[in-house]
Amino acid sequence: MIVVIGHKNPDTDSVVSAIVGSYLFNQLGFNSKPARAGELNKETKFILNYFKKNEPELISNLAGQDFILVDHNSVKESVDGRDDHRLAAVIDHHYLSGVQTEKPILYRAEPIGSTSTILAKMFWEKKIDLPQDLAGLLLAGIISDTLKFNSPTTTKEDKEIAQKLADLTKVDIDQLAEQMFEAKSDLGDLSWGEIISKDYKVFEGNSKTFGVGVWETVKPELLLRNRDKIIESMRRKKEIDRLDWFLFGVVDIIKQNTYLFLVDSDETELAQVVFNGKIENRIMFLPGIISRKKQMVPEILKYLNK
Amino acid sequence: MIVVIGHKNPDTDSVVSAIVGSYLFNQLGFNSKPARAGELNKETKFILNYFKKNEPELISNLAGQDFILVDHNSVKESVDGRDDHRLAAVIDHHYLSGVQTEKPILYRAEPIGSTSTILAKMFWEKKIDLPQDLAGLLLAGIISDTLKFNSPTTTKEDKEIAQKLADLTKVDIDQLAEQMFEAKSDLGDLSWGEIISKDYKVFEGNSKTFGVGVWETVKPELLLRNRDKIIESMRRKKEIDRLDWFLFGVVDIIKQNTYLFLVDSDETELAQVVFNGKIENRIMFLPGIISRKKQMVPEILKYLNK
Repeated sequence: MIVVIGHKNPDTDSVVSAIVGSYLFNQLGFNSKPARAGELNKETKFILNYFKKNEPELISNLAGQDFILVDHNSVKESVDGRDDHRLAAVIDHHYLSGVQTEKPILYRAEPIGSTSTILAKMFWEKKIDLPQDLAGLLLAGIISDTLKFNSPTTTKEDKEIAQKLADLTKVDIDQLAEQMFEAKSDLGDLSWGEIISKDYKVFEGNSKTFGVGVWETVKPELLLRNRDKIIESMRRKKEIDRLDWFLFGVVDIIKQNTYLFLVDSDETELAQVVFNGKIENRIMFLPGIISRKKQMVPEILKYLNK
Repeated sequence: MIVVIGHKNPDTDSVVSAIVGSYLFNQLGFNSKPARAGELNKETKFILNYFKKNEPELISNLAGQDFILVDHNSVKESVDGRDDHRLAAVIDHHYLSGVQTEKPILYRAEPIGSTSTILAKMFWEKKIDLPQDLAGLLLAGIISDTLKFNSPTTTKEDKEIAQKLADLTKVDIDQLAEQMFEAKSDLGDLSWGEIISKDYKVFEGNSKTFGVGVWETVKPELLLRNRDKIIESMRRKKEIDRLDWFLFGVVDIIKQNTYLFLVDSDETELAQVVFNGKIENRIMFLPGIISRKKQMVPEILKYLNK
C-alpha cells in the first residue's frame, strides 16, 4: 500500500491532491491510499464536507512506508521518517529541493498555480474518467492556492482548467470561492499563537534567519483589532525560534492587500527598507501584495544578499 | 536563447530528444535551439541522414547559457559549466540525482524505455502537430534505447507509442532497426581505446571503484577476434582511471547475449562470483544479459555491498 501525502501544515491544495492523486494512481495500477500530514484548516474541512468526502488518514511518520508526494518535494516540508528509497512518484508545483533516488520514478512538476491543476491535466491526458466530486475537489484546490486567480503564481492554464472543472461539476466559481474564503476566515477556537504559526515558514539569507507567517482572510478586522495580543505571541515565537526577524502578514483576499505585523524596531527597520509601506500602530499596509512566495520573501532575500 | 541538450557521449535517444524537444518547447512559447554534448556515434549519424536533419551544434560548456536537459539530469553526465539557476526544464527517464532550483520549473521524468517515448506523449497530450520527420526521429530514439524492445527497461507504452510513430511515418520498425544496428556496428576508424570508452561509466560501491564499458553490435566477431588489442587498451584505461576493476561488455543485439572482456585476475574473480558465466580465452559469455543499467551494475553493487 502506497501512501499519497502532501506537506505538513496541510492546505486545501495538498489535501485534495492526496485524495484525487490516490484515485488517479489507483486507476494507473498502483495500490494507494490518501493521507494528510497534519490537522486540516477550516477551509479544507468545509470543502471535504461540501463534496461529501472523509478526512484522509493522519500520518505523522512515514517510516517503513512506500509513498507518493504531492504538492511538495522538500524533506523539510514532509512528515518525519521519509526514506526516499521508497519514493514512488512526485506531483508538484514547487522548486526542486534536491531529491535523490536510485531508480527512475515518475516526477512531474510544473511552474503553475496549483498541484490540482496538474492532476486535472493528467486525467485528461491519460483519458481517465474524472468523477464529478473529484473534479470539484480539484477546482477547490485551484481556487485556494491561487486565491481565486489573484495570486501572481496564477497562469492562464490554471484559469482555463478551473473553468473546465466548474463546467463539469456545475459549480459556480465565485460562489464556491466566497464560501471557501469565509470558512478560511473563521478563527474558530485557535489561539493567537496557533494563528501566527498555522502557515509559517523560516528562511535564511546572508547568515540571518527570518520567519514569515501569513493568514489569508476576508475579515482582516478580526485580527487587526487584536493587534497587541498577536504581537505578544509573535515576540514569544521569535524568541523560541531564535529569529533575527519575524513578520506576520494578514492577507485581505478580497481587497488584495496585506497588513504586516511588526514585533519590534528590528522588524520595523527591515520592513521600511524593503517594502517602504505606511506604518500605523506597528502595522505596515502593503497594497497589492498577497504572495509570500513571489512578493514578500524574494524582496527580503534580495535586500539581505545585497 | 535556451540550449536543449542531452548527456556527454551522446546516444541516439539523447540527440533526437534535443532536436524534437527544442521544436516542442518552441511550440510552447520558449525560444530554444538543440545542441549535442559530444561527437555523434555512427547510428545517430545514420538516423540524422535518414531523416535529412543537420547535426545539432556542439556545445561543450554551458557557462552563461539558459538550458533544458533531456535524457539525463545528473551533473556528472552533463557538459561543464552548468549553472542550475539557469535550468529551464528537464525531460528524462533516469533516476533523480538531486537537482536543486530556486524556482518551480517543468520537470518530467518517467520510468520508461526512452526519453523519446515521453516526448511523443507530450505532443499528443498538448495536441501539438508532430511533423513526420520528427516522429521518425522519436521512433529511432525508442528503437535505439530499448534495443528494439529487447532491453529490460522497455515498457508496454514504449511499444505502443513506437507502433503509433511507425504508422505515422510509414516506416517499418524491423527494417529501420536493422539499418540502425548495422550502422552502430561499424567500427569505422575508431581506435580500440575509443571503442572501449565510447559508452563507458564509472560506479562506486563499498569504497571500490569499477568502470563498465559497453559496445552494442550486430557483429560481435569484429571485436572478439581482436581480443588481445582490446584487453591491452582496457589495461591502460584501468591504470589511468585508477579503477579496482574494469569490465567491457560486447552486447550482441541480435542474439541477446553479452561477451564480457576480463583484463586480469581481479576481473576474472569478480565476474566469476557475480555472474558465474563460462570463460574462454579471458572472455565470459553471459546469455540473456544485455543491459548495464538493469542487469550488470546492480548485480555487482549487490555483491560489493554485501
